[in-house]
Amino acid sequence: MIIELKKTVTPQQADALAQKYKSVLFENGKQVLVTSSKLKQADDDLKEVAERIVITDSDIQLAGKQYISHKRTITIAENLSIGGNTNYTIVITGPCSVESEEQIDAAAQLCVELGVKVLRAGAYKPRTSPYTFQGLGLDGLKLLDKMRAKYGLKIITEVRDSTHADEVIEYADIIQIGAKSMYDHGILRKCGKTNKPVLLKRGFGTTLQEFVQAAEFILSGGNPNVMLCERGIRTFETKTRFTLDLCGVAWLKESTNLPVILDPSHAIGYAYGVPDLARACVAMGVDGLLIESHPNPKVAKSDAEQQLNFDEFRKLHVSLAQVAAAVGYKLV
Amino acid sequence: MIIELKKTVTPQQADALAQKYKSVLFENGKQVLVTSSKLKQADDDLKEVAERIVITDSDIQLAGKQYISHKRTITIAENLSIGGNTNYTIVITGPCSVESEEQIDAAAQLCVELGVKVLRAGAYKPRTSPYTFQGLGLDGLKLLDKMRAKYGLKIITEVRDSTHADEVIEYADIIQIGAKSMYDHGILRKCGKTNKPVLLKRGFGTTLQEFVQAAEFILSGGNPNVMLCERGIRTFETKTRFTLDLCGVAWLKESTNLPVILDPSHAIGYAYGVPDLARACVAMGVDGLLIESHPNPKVAKSDAEQQLNFDEFRKLHVSLAQVAAAVGYKLV
Amino acid sequence: MIIELKKTVTPQQADALAQKYKSVLFENGKQVLVTSSKLKQADDDLKEVAERIVITDSDIQLAGKQYISHKRTITIAENLSIGGNTNYTIVITGPCSVESEEQIDAAAQLCVELGVKVLRAGAYKPRTSPYTFQGLGLDGLKLLDKMRAKYGLKIITEVRDSTHADEVIEYADIIQIGAKSMYDHGILRKCGKTNKPVLLKRGFGTTLQEFVQAAEFILSGGNPNVMLCERGIRTFETKTRFTLDLCGVAWLKESTNLPVILDPSHAIGYAYGVPDLARACVAMGVDGLLIESHPNPKVAKSDAEQQLNFDEFRKLHVSLAQVAAAVGYKLV
Amino acid sequence: MIIELKKTVTPQQADALAQKYKSVLFENGKQVLVTSSKLKQADDDLKEVAERIVITDSDIQLAGKQYISHKRTITIAENLSIGGNTNYTIVITGPCSVESEEQIDAAAQLCVELGVKVLRAGAYKPRTSPYTFQGLGLDGLKLLDKMRAKYGLKIITEVRDSTHADEVIEYADIIQIGAKSMYDHGILRKCGKTNKPVLLKRGFGTTLQEFVQAAEFILSGGNPNVMLCERGIRTFETKTRFTLDLCGVAWLKESTNLPVILDPSHAIGYAYGVPDLARACVAMGVDGLLIESHPNPKVAKSDAEQQLNFDEFRKLHVSLAQVAAAVGYKLV
Repeated sequence: MIIELKKTVTPQQADALAQKYKSVLFENGKQVLVTSSKLKQADDDLKEVAERIVITDSDIQLAGKQYISHKRTITIAENLSIGGNTNYTIVITGPCSVESEEQIDAAAQLCVELGVKVLRAGAYKPRTSPYTFQGLGLDGLKLLDKMRAKYGLKIITEVRDSTHADEVIEYADIIQIGAKSMYDHGILRKCGKTNKPVLLKRGFGTTLQEFVQAAEFILSGGNPNVMLCERGIRTFETKTRFTLDLCGVAWLKESTNLPVILDPSHAIGYAYGVPDLARACVAMGVDGLLIESHPNPKVAKSDAEQQLNFDEFRKLHVSLAQVAAAVGYKLV
Repeated sequence: MIIELKKTVTPQQADALAQKYKSVLFENGKQVLVTSSKLKQADDDLKEVAERIVITDSDIQLAGKQYISHKRTITIAENLSIGGNTNYTIVITGPCSVESEEQIDAAAQLCVELGVKVLRAGAYKPRTSPYTFQGLGLDGLKLLDKMRAKYGLKIITEVRDSTHADEVIEYADIIQIGAKSMYDHGILRKCGKTNKPVLLKRGFGTTLQEFVQAAEFILSGGNPNVMLCERGIRTFETKTRFTLDLCGVAWLKESTNLPVILDPSHAIGYAYGVPDLARACVAMGVDGLLIESHPNPKVAKSDAEQQLNFDEFRKLHVSLAQVAAAVGYKLV
Repeated sequence: MIIELKKTVTPQQADALAQKYKSVLFENGKQVLVTSSKLKQADDDLKEVAERIVITDSDIQLAGKQYISHKRTITIAENLSIGGNTNYTIVITGPCSVESEEQIDAAAQLCVELGVKVLRAGAYKPRTSPYTFQGLGLDGLKLLDKMRAKYGLKIITEVRDSTHADEVIEYADIIQIGAKSMYDHGILRKCGKTNKPVLLKRGFGTTLQEFVQAAEFILSGGNPNVMLCERGIRTFETKTRFTLDLCGVAWLKESTNLPVILDPSHAIGYAYGVPDLARACVAMGVDGLLIESHPNPKVAKSDAEQQLNFDEFRKLHVSLAQVAAAVGYKLV
Repeated sequence: MIIELKKTVTPQQADALAQKYKSVLFENGKQVLVTSSKLKQADDDLKEVAERIVITDSDIQLAGKQYISHKRTITIAENLSIGGNTNYTIVITGPCSVESEEQIDAAAQLCVELGVKVLRAGAYKPRTSPYTFQGLGLDGLKLLDKMRAKYGLKIITEVRDSTHADEVIEYADIIQIGAKSMYDHGILRKCGKTNKPVLLKRGFGTTLQEFVQAAEFILSGGNPNVMLCERGIRTFETKTRFTLDLCGVAWLKESTNLPVILDPSHAIGYAYGVPDLARACVAMGVDGLLIESHPNPKVAKSDAEQQLNFDEFRKLHVSLAQVAAAVGYKLV
């Protein structure tokens, strides 16, 4: 149950109710209490202080259509809005990892050339093996910062674990929580304490229910700016790295109030299929697209097989705009 | 290894070689031998009789790009071609099951109204429970035959098991092999002996490798007219009935010479998501689309939740044409 | 709903009720009607003719504990019983395929040596590729028949599709329906018309609910002698061929009245793990075990990697007896 | 490639080589360098300083049988050894969460009564929803500490994220890394810097390869004391919560040098199946077993459905000893 409190309720009163109902309390313009979804009826003490009460079916509460029936609008770095009624499909591109200034500068120039507004690249890489490139760390974040200053791009970059979450929150315009970090309470709670947009990736073994419940940790911390990112789930099929779950995307659009971003590159894991898949994603009518591109994929230090080279990306960008237009969206 | 034999080779000689190399022999314009893909080098006796020899990587042989580098063209009922260079995305619609003459006639009229050329409906339903509607059987086939005669539509309908395969092969313009029957050697071998187009659906627990290998049973029986249909695989996600594998579709397009048809209705299992998914399918640049529609989904005897009503289908049909155009295809 | 009819009800009356309630009617000692499980209340016309009425939760009806609260006893070839209160774990062994008289005779001798009573081997192999060994067919069945006559063994062998179901039903003491044929209505219905025991394997992409519902096709045809066989499901893990689902086995034991047989050989797909897994299976307290063994696995025409050689099998047999004893079962 | 360095090599020399070969360097009795497994041949500068060089197939290096051909022995809190040649199957039990002193004391007394040496309970719970009980945190750790002092039990408890890793490392005798935290580099690296035993649980969407590679992060940090815990993977089957992967356990025993512990409680998620599954686990010949038990499962604040009550646990404990004996192991 979600209880939006009247302005007259003091923080002390709110705290006492939170204790009594074992519920989460946060403040974002107004004070909001969220109890377990098992509570289906409000007692008088709750009714008295409530401006609005919403009964919910499951612990998808703040993210659900029962609470907010339209899609949220999210503003990135003050002047770029997505979701809501914008009908924007935002394009985000860049390499898997920041590898060098030369490499990330080339990626940034491609963005400028095509009017892409958000540059992606990882500084802390959640590699599966300790014996491979682990990312440039803080030096990587600083190179991304330089690109922002030089080209006016917005930056999205990934937090891998809680030990460096503060740095990423400081440097990024959009904080990316990767598929392997999606259950990390340390990260989720820190992201709940900022107001920066968060792109939360679905774990590859994560159900849609769990995925949206992870978003609830951020939302109930007080940060309303969460985007969901489907990037492929793990199935029995191994010809491709993962299986992009567009049925799940249809469900997210139907059931939640959060913008949805898709990542076809990580889903298939091979560059040959990215253009067809990216077009399919745009035809779904989604709020954004993450596509890995690299000045020279063959020498990339991570994800070499799935990154598009710049010419492939340029060609794809043209056709994505056409598909977006066919479904009433605008590529930005 | 695929060995296309010279015209001068007699059937007796061909048979002897088939025995010696434990290989499959078929005739379709020319005689073709197919050995295990483990055979990587042709002996002199094979070289002497061969017009062409193709070494293959796996037992995806006749369906592979190594054998035929372009997509096959398939002709349905003499005057409708798909695949090849047509750039057609064919639309197939109709109810899950033939339930009555009135119902199937309404479905046929919708096809005529929208210019849809192929009507789908099942007469032998592979139901999971014995205690539910099992289909009208031969009476259902006869109703479909009547619709063909009355409206000039082409008919696709499903064979459930070998006991009625001959009837379905006789009545259908396209023989559909369902997801649960995909490994049925009895059906596959019978379909290899006709020249009618076969739409082979991927089993929901079937890898892409196995799926295409099932097509090899038909192709190596002598029938070159096989279409592959992705209809969703079974994964851990249960908010939707299945997970449509568009990464797999990208792989099929890259690796095989067979046209690809998609079935978003069975994949998601809920009508709300079918339009978005259908648009995504068309944006992939595929050869066709199977969409379930029903004059009154609420009273449907099977798959009630996933069938579109006629107004939903009409609206969807308009937008599919726009998406097809955006990717250089034409909806037929 | 299951309605056991009074002896006084004529077949004509029973038929009329079956029509009226769209239900399945069979006769096995008594006449039994089974309606959809959605029917939750019996009208007076049903109450009048009923000896017993059982309301069921799902279309797991005849196989459910609500209908028969204890495990069924199944008699194989008249003098070997399993299930019920026997506390027997029956061992079934032999090669994947009948390859030659010499090979199958060696396998039969191993059975005799160790007191194993049931010999397994396939004559119709459901191979994934058309370019590999497909089984000896009827010749294979005849060789198995010879072993039965020579050594007094019981024979279990697999039916692949409906086209040869009658032969297999005739030659086998236990009819095996393979994982890929599990949904084949043609086979299931034919098996419902015999009284021979049927071992139904779970499809590797099949839920427990669907699996038991497939058994309902046989049971509602009038054959009460069905055993369920878990043989591994398909998951994301590929170091092993399949994943043996012992959690599922616990559920089957809890929820159904059918004996359960396990097949660790197909589950893991590699001989090294079969002994440990087989011991785990026996420790579950199950009714039987299928283990592939071969006089010379290296030259086996199918499943070469997973078959034990005879010495490995002998050693395993000793330890299985010890584990069985530890859980109160007896290896037969 | 693993290079054990000669005693004469200085830390400075070792560092220089680590830089040059982009490899991980750690010290545990001796200095060890681990390069990418792609390096297949050692140059002269490596050969000169090497006491031993091991070429490995994949990035399963320190955990592999190629490096250490026998199973590691791990000592818990100085006087309890498992793995190696002990043939011990260690039993670990206790509730899902520490809820109160009364509850954890009752659990500790059960351990003492039955001779169970290790008490489990979580203080930081990785709950899926923010609106449920999240654990007692540090207060929970202190209660566990009290039980250790009072009863001489060893304590295993879970670290959820890096923000409280230091506390858990300090209080636990065995540090448990949960299934959802398995990829957390922050935790893995901290665990590499201690010598306390670590029980690493497999993620439910994690392949065996990735699982063991996560162990490599700890091992290559210098901590040789890692145990692997299989606790069920996520599959399409939903009658049970997860699917215990005993095929995978067979592979781990065959391929790695790490002890293996099994957790049947989380795998099935329902108490009814835990005894049968636990017996199956013991019959696999594994090094330990984690079983959830609770003085009153019905009122448990987490995992209420899967915890055994004390009488169920007592009965199970007796039969586990019998199964262990049947496979040559001793329950401790």
